[in-house]
Amino acid sequence: MTDASAIDTTAPSEAIRMSDRHRDNLEAAERAIVDRGYWSAYPEMPKAYGEEAAQAGQDAFAAYRDQRFPLDQPATDGWEGAERSPFGFDLGISYPHSNLDELLAQMTAAIPQWRDAGPDVRAGVCLEILARINARSHELAHAVMHTTGQAFPMAFQAGGPHAQDRALEAIAYAHAEMTRHASEARWEKPQGKRPPLVMHKRFNVVPRGVALVIGCSTFPTWNGYPGLFASLVTGNAVIVKPARRAVLPLAITVAVAREVLAEAGFSPNLVTLAVDRPNERLASTLATRPEVRIIDYTGSTGFGEWLEANARQAVVFTEKAGVNSIVIDSTDDYRGMLDNIAFTLSLFSGQMCTTTQNILVPRAGIDTDQGHKDFDTVAEDLGASIDVLLGDDARANAILGAIGSDDILERVDSAQQHGRVIRASRAIVNPEFTEAAVRTPALVALQAGEDEETYLEEQFGPIAFLIATDDTEASLELLRRSAREHGAITAGVYSTSDTVLDAAEAAAMDGAVALSCNLTGGVFVNQSAAFSDFHATGGNPAANATLSDGAFVASRFRIVQSRRHLPLGD
Amino acid sequence: MTDASAIDTTAPSEAIRMSDRHRDNLEAAERAIVDRGYWSAYPEMPKAYGEEAAQAGQDAFAAYRDQRFPLDQPATDGWEGAERSPFGFDLGISYPHSNLDELLAQMTAAIPQWRDAGPDVRAGVCLEILARINARSHELAHAVMHTTGQAFPMAFQAGGPHAQDRALEAIAYAHAEMTRHASEARWEKPQGKRPPLVMHKRFNVVPRGVALVIGCSTFPTWNGYPGLFASLVTGNAVIVKPARRAVLPLAITVAVAREVLAEAGFSPNLVTLAVDRPNERLASTLATRPEVRIIDYTGSTGFGEWLEANARQAVVFTEKAGVNSIVIDSTDDYRGMLDNIAFTLSLFSGQMCTTTQNILVPRAGIDTDQGHKDFDTVAEDLGASIDVLLGDDARANAILGAIGSDDILERVDSAQQHGRVIRASRAIVNPEFTEAAVRTPALVALQAGEDEETYLEEQFGPIAFLIATDDTEASLELLRRSAREHGAITAGVYSTSDTVLDAAEAAAMDGAVALSCNLTGGVFVNQSAAFSDFHATGGNPAANATLSDGAFVASRFRIVQSRRHLPLGD
Repeated sequence: MTDASAIDTTAPSEAIRMSDRHRDNLEAAERAIVDRGYWSAYPEMPKAYGEEAAQAGQDAFAAYRDQRFPLDQPATDGWEGAERSPFGFDLGISYPHSNLDELLAQMTAAIPQWRDAGPDVRAGVCLEILARINARSHELAHAVMHTTGQAFPMAFQAGGPHAQDRALEAIAYAHAEMTRHASEARWEKPQGKRPPLVMHKRFNVVPRGVALVIGCSTFPTWNGYPGLFASLVTGNAVIVKPARRAVLPLAITVAVAREVLAEAGFSPNLVTLAVDRPNERLASTLATRPEVRIIDYTGSTGFGEWLEANARQAVVFTEKAGVNSIVIDSTDDYRGMLDNIAFTLSLFSGQMCTTTQNILVPRAGIDTDQGHKDFDTVAEDLGASIDVLLGDDARANAILGAIGSDDILERVDSAQQHGRVIRASRAIVNPEFTEAAVRTPALVALQAGEDEETYLEEQFGPIAFLIATDDTEASLELLRRSAREHGAITAGVYSTSDTVLDAAEAAAMDGAVALSCNLTGGVFVNQSAAFSDFHATGGNPAANATLSDGAFVASRFRIVQSRRHLPLGD
Repeated sequence: MTDASAIDTTAPSEAIRMSDRHRDNLEAAERAIVDRGYWSAYPEMPKAYGEEAAQAGQDAFAAYRDQRFPLDQPATDGWEGAERSPFGFDLGISYPHSNLDELLAQMTAAIPQWRDAGPDVRAGVCLEILARINARSHELAHAVMHTTGQAFPMAFQAGGPHAQDRALEAIAYAHAEMTRHASEARWEKPQGKRPPLVMHKRFNVVPRGVALVIGCSTFPTWNGYPGLFASLVTGNAVIVKPARRAVLPLAITVAVAREVLAEAGFSPNLVTLAVDRPNERLASTLATRPEVRIIDYTGSTGFGEWLEANARQAVVFTEKAGVNSIVIDSTDDYRGMLDNIAFTLSLFSGQMCTTTQNILVPRAGIDTDQGHKDFDTVAEDLGASIDVLLGDDARANAILGAIGSDDILERVDSAQQHGRVIRASRAIVNPEFTEAAVRTPALVALQAGEDEETYLEEQFGPIAFLIATDDTEASLELLRRSAREHGAITAGVYSTSDTVLDAAEAAAMDGAVALSCNLTGGVFVNQSAAFSDFHATGGNPAANATLSDGAFVASRFRIVQSRRHLPLGD
């Protein structure tokens, strides 16, 4: 897959060494995206990072607080920042604010050398950036935890190694795409009795320009890295505009990238940070700049659609709101099913784009290994599973994390207005961070025919609906329709009938949503594994792209060829 | 590349036979898009099709005239058609006009069976369609000739085998994209001392829905086939809306596709024709229908931009107007250069999206193997080359074809208003078709600094500008800027200096336009060979896509996965 002959020998020697160092890892990643079995490049267990890593990470996070963030970016004309940990304290970190004209000019000027270094060298440099980020996973875990509200275990895994895996996956796709055909070719066309026409052709990978990554406040690295690294490795410069509440994880990322780029002999201005002043609306300003030719965005449907409509000079990849459903038809593991769903609803207080919102149950109830269960019993038993899961405060805190958004807190507080409350949301005390807003999920019973306006809208946060449908067929139709019309990133089904499972797969294909069947163990519908699971499909309103597939990377660069005649015999 | 195990054994047996029959050709095409040397699946010489093919093709074309076109499409509510050959006679053919609601409903209903047949079966059926189209290349040549105005030799090659090669190329890219990863996988994640998590995953290729192909009037098959076959092979249904002046070639194509689909056991309604009533504006109606999820368009910038802005429910691929340049710096084959450019300007009366419009020459002239030539001499010598090339009427007719557009005739008639006329356009009589409008190219001298408004706009048709620049550096800057800002599909450079050639390649990369260097023989800047040359880059305003690359096919389908646990040991 890696073609050593394609390395531009004019690339800086340190960059070539990086490429050599990481070649095996890149090739393994390129095999993994083909095979799609389990594979990971970065250990997900905190202990794998050595005995001193935990303390060093904590110290590094502490050192950032109440300081200017160490970023040597050009065109700095001020310092901005107003992050507050969802666990209840201000970070006090400020970041350089830059003059956009000057910053974008310097970024644009940096591109040709990066472009000319070629796919292999760029991939090597990107993998070196990832290796250094990986070594700082503990530091990033604290940064993610205290910007997003994720509890530490999740902040470590999802914000660290899992995000790094998603980055490597995107690099692997992009590298494979850039090198899928010969970089040079001899074209010899027979001309009957006359001598053949002979040409030499060169196929150059040319980036689009500056790429903009607009970060989200819940998974700044996991959702931000694929676009960032896919754009960078394909030769573009990348400007990272984090969500106001979650700057630090991406600022660390940008700082590492700049350090590695400079060491490799390239301009560090290939990766920069854009932090806005209060009310500056920098994301929309940047999104319509002519220099910006690629945008990756995760966030609200409103701004996502605005980008798609207005950033016409750019290729725009968006992940927006959706309504995820689970259809319950029947099960041979009633307890396993309830516990699995309870965990899904609770993890990070339901603040995942993959969290289930609508649980569709036939009004007449379901058959299980513990006999027939009517709708109300299923509702009550699911509530009880949540109670048990979150009954111990220490465990509850480790699962739920904290809620940093006032909108979500208001939404969960008013959840009872939607229907019959099975479980109200409950506040839990975090003994370490007593000001953290920690909430259990609210579970509300609705009627499929009556409450569409409520359940077909995304209720982001710890709110789930148990919806009574006419039958499983109606449930599947609702899953299909809500995915097609309102978007969905995940879907689940529980059934002991192969016919129902097949029908669910057909409904999922129609709704273009990934389906998980009969999850009762240690895998959850809201989890998505790099190199194996495609995150979002790009085929319904929840997202116009997948993390990652060929379409996610192929349009980030263009092939610009040149051809000339060869004398016969050459 | 072809994975026999992925064939859905529930697919109709005739379809599986088609897949078997064409497997070698598909695999060869998939190798060709990697190697990018010369390769072709379909002979380009008319004689290769047997002694009776020429007469049979002519007879078939004659039989269509003044008849209803034999297309058994459902929902027919009228017959429409008003084609007139640019060679001077009405075709008199009418085509079924369909009720859109009913037609789109039947197309949508046909998709699931086609989707479930899988990539290999679909590719086999598409290659069978191409094989039957190929066998009718003579018939298609007449259809293309008498709708576009191409002379027969070009109509045969560009409208027949070259278009078929571009179709196969798109199929090869799409098939490679659909099968680039495992269709099923076992995912086994270690859990330390506990048993591993084991899942079975299936990755389904799911089409977007109905794809719309909006044909152009100059190259209905060459420009239309890539999108048509890329969408069809990825599981979509395709509705073909030809340009009003060039219906017949695409109607024949649709008829062949329907015949093969039905024989293969699928609904023929996977491919349909949409012909509009006078003033119906069917293209814009179709483009915003919710069923339509993919659009391929070749034509004016105005409507292309309208599609990009308004067909928001669809993925939109457009090829629009551009301004193609050749930079002349110096040459060691003055005659070869002039003759090569003269042919480029003359072929099909300059009615190609790849034809050069602006020829940039330093005001002080150029060095050549025949000594220094000042600007006026280059201009006069190029005019003389055109005179010689087109001096013989029979040859001139075979090169120029006819002009079917009144707009183009008016444009060429008023070309002298733009600047100093080096050669006025000259009318030539076609003895076989005396009413045909046949015109030689107009060559007009302009000043780079003064006439921007003229030469930075596309003057589609037989009009070329010889533009005096300050020097070659200024010429390259103009090439770069006009490509970036106004679009370009081709660029050329003539120089004996490697430094200039390198600078031209850099300018071409910046402008994202394919470059041809020092063409003096039997290859022309406006020619683009399937499987080797990328047609357009998608990186400047002339097109947002390439024929073909990964980006052209990857977003026409989505991967929708399903996963379930496997018991340990499975």
